Amino acid sequence: MDKLRSLKSQRFGTRVVVVGAGFAGVELTKRLKGAPVRITVIDRHNYHLFQPLLYQAATAVLAPSEIAWPIREMFRDRDDVEVVLGAVTAIDRVAKRVSLASGASIAFDILVIATGATHAYFGHPEWERLAPGLKTVDDATSIRRRILMAFEEAERSTDQDRRKALLTFAVVGAGPTGVELAGMIAELARSVLPGEYRRIDTRQAQILLIEAGDRILNGYDVSLAAFAHHALVRRGVEIRLGQPVTSVSDDGLTIGKEQVPAATILWAAGVQASPAADWLAAPADKSGRVKVTPHLMLPEDGDIFVIGDTAHVGWHDDKAVPGIAPAAKQEGAYVADVIRRRIAGEDDGKPFRYRHQGDLATIGRSAAIVDFGRIKLKGMLAWWVWGVAHIYFLIGGRSRLAVALSWLWHYVRRRPSAQLITRGAAADD
Amino acid sequence: MDKLRSLKSQRFGTRVVVVGAGFAGVELTKRLKGAPVRITVIDRHNYHLFQPLLYQAATAVLAPSEIAWPIREMFRDRDDVEVVLGAVTAIDRVAKRVSLASGASIAFDILVIATGATHAYFGHPEWERLAPGLKTVDDATSIRRRILMAFEEAERSTDQDRRKALLTFAVVGAGPTGVELAGMIAELARSVLPGEYRRIDTRQAQILLIEAGDRILNGYDVSLAAFAHHALVRRGVEIRLGQPVTSVSDDGLTIGKEQVPAATILWAAGVQASPAADWLAAPADKSGRVKVTPHLMLPEDGDIFVIGDTAHVGWHDDKAVPGIAPAAKQEGAYVADVIRRRIAGEDDGKPFRYRHQGDLATIGRSAAIVDFGRIKLKGMLAWWVWGVAHIYFLIGGRSRLAVALSWLWHYVRRRPSAQLITRGAAADD
Repeated sequence: MDKLRSLKSQRFGTRVVVVGAGFAGVELTKRLKGAPVRITVIDRHNYHLFQPLLYQAATAVLAPSEIAWPIREMFRDRDDVEVVLGAVTAIDRVAKRVSLASGASIAFDILVIATGATHAYFGHPEWERLAPGLKTVDDATSIRRRILMAFEEAERSTDQDRRKALLTFAVVGAGPTGVELAGMIAELARSVLPGEYRRIDTRQAQILLIEAGDRILNGYDVSLAAFAHHALVRRGVEIRLGQPVTSVSDDGLTIGKEQVPAATILWAAGVQASPAADWLAAPADKSGRVKVTPHLMLPEDGDIFVIGDTAHVGWHDDKAVPGIAPAAKQEGAYVADVIRRRIAGEDDGKPFRYRHQGDLATIGRSAAIVDFGRIKLKGMLAWWVWGVAHIYFLIGGRSRLAVALSWLWHYVRRRPSAQLITRGAAADD
Repeated sequence: MDKLRSLKSQRFGTRVVVVGAGFAGVELTKRLKGAPVRITVIDRHNYHLFQPLLYQAATAVLAPSEIAWPIREMFRDRDDVEVVLGAVTAIDRVAKRVSLASGASIAFDILVIATGATHAYFGHPEWERLAPGLKTVDDATSIRRRILMAFEEAERSTDQDRRKALLTFAVVGAGPTGVELAGMIAELARSVLPGEYRRIDTRQAQILLIEAGDRILNGYDVSLAAFAHHALVRRGVEIRLGQPVTSVSDDGLTIGKEQVPAATILWAAGVQASPAADWLAAPADKSGRVKVTPHLMLPEDGDIFVIGDTAHVGWHDDKAVPGIAPAAKQEGAYVADVIRRRIAGEDDGKPFRYRHQGDLATIGRSAAIVDFGRIKLKGMLAWWVWGVAHIYFLIGGRSRLAVALSWLWHYVRRRPSAQLITRGAAADD
């Protein structure tokens, strides 16, 4: 392998470029600590985001800074790491350079793409503006504003039909994010906000969870998903199964053939990988995920790895490794190991093997489901396990303390702490 | 007084409309608890803001939700209080109605205007876009983004002149806000950020504090202001006294006759009251503050009170009561008392008398000044007094705990906790 020789010959000079500072990219960079490489981490944002809790920022429970950390700060003590704020526009595999929107271009010996995925609007990109998804801190504050402003406008509206539409919240897609969003909006409407308004009863709000498939939490254990289903219904969420959304407009959406007026529509359906396959001119699956070898590289280019939600990695029975944080971290750790082996002059070692650690989802206060294979939990105990697990995986002592404090407050007082409407809150219309 | 009789006759029905939920409006509303009135609180934002700490949100030390509280939540248990999110556009003193931008109009028996003030651009409103001031949560996140993005752009710039401009931060106006902003930016540049960047030395950043007057902290004790001056200089802030800003552009500003290239210009000079005087067609001083009687009402209309930064209230030796939080709270408490007296059939009582409790300002880590009249403190001890005082005046146990935790973290680790670039962070340009 001539690649290997060229790498060995330039020990301490191997340039590893990592695109994307999500779970996969950050884990890889951490695991390369002390390796004789120079690392450049490129991201469009200046923060690493703990995405599993983003819905809590969207529903006013946590503040954005409790679940996001500046990338520069994470690697400030790593002289081998340079952080670049920038958006990739193209990759030249022959010249081995990454081009950024700023016009800059960065050379690599080894490139790791970990640019994640977003939701899919199934051929209707125009729906995105009307029904935003939840992927960035800005998405979360914007969704928080939409939800709170809908209640505000309902309070001042005198038109009964308009008021009903303002108090209708539709969440499209019943995976974990959709379930968590619907559960938290129901909690806001039924436990937190009553008493704050004088002209509307927020408990009358209609929260719809819409799923084209025949069950919620597809892929989760059937009995746990059934528990979650009933827990949501008990909390006042109306679940519509087997009905695809066929249109979205400013006034509402069409579920199957039924027109539903709704002022707030949130999107948590589908998966659309980042355009990495286009940059690389590499084969992709129908979600746009790059098909990688069992060693997580491009089939025809061993110097380019693709990991995390942007990669299609085989698992078992034709299934792909799921797009969740633990999988992304395992892939990042694996590729760090492959890079170390190459520099040490060894072969690439065993193929990547995904270890599924479990499924978790929370429905709301005191209700969650946890599936560790042999151990399955639901309800209050699962909720505590879920909370402790998430606090454990947060980065840095301050965040753990702050999130624990916010949750404790939310739990004891039944009030969230971040219920601010920012950017456009002024009712200047 | 026929007003009085009409009020007494409709006991339990007196409609008090409070415009503005800052310190003055909130204090008034709290003090009217249990009085036989119906209160409507109107604000353009859904939150009450602890403005004295806003500069800490702008400099990434605190999160916005630590210093702002939803107004509805503050008054959720007060059935006599209704909260309206809306912007006032006009006041009809004859019909006794307040008009909102939404088209709604709200009737009042007693009206209290507490709509605050903003900075003054001295006849150059076009400078506001280039040199934003700090009054709302959105201002704080936007200034935080500007400051952090300037360092990011300097890191990727290859042009020496441009890099120098990007690393020049100009703060216009050396009152407490200007001093605190300049001190915190110096701290960011010199203590927090070094080590996070690879191509720039953030300690080379030039932080200018520009004041048209001949000293900083005008109105503060001379020896304490001199201490603050030297503390800022020691921290690397360059203070320019006696030099007015004569122009502001995208490229920088002109101080006196000197052109200074600067990518970040922040405005903390002048006072321009809200347009309440226009709404009321009432006489105002040159800052637009409504001139009120010693009972804080309009001279010719005893049912309309003006309090807080929007009012010009005489103090001593031709001086007006300063535009600070304690003064606003005292005025709110005073007017609540006048309203209670009227409803009880008494006269309006003694005129308002301002009790000045002291002056506080902080320069940065371990340095502040405190002037309680006979007791004057500076340095480390003053800093602790300042911190404890501010935590004490925060609303709610959770905020106190959260801010104390953030500060403790900042103090021990020397790292702020909210260093996020949101909205437009993506380097898509």
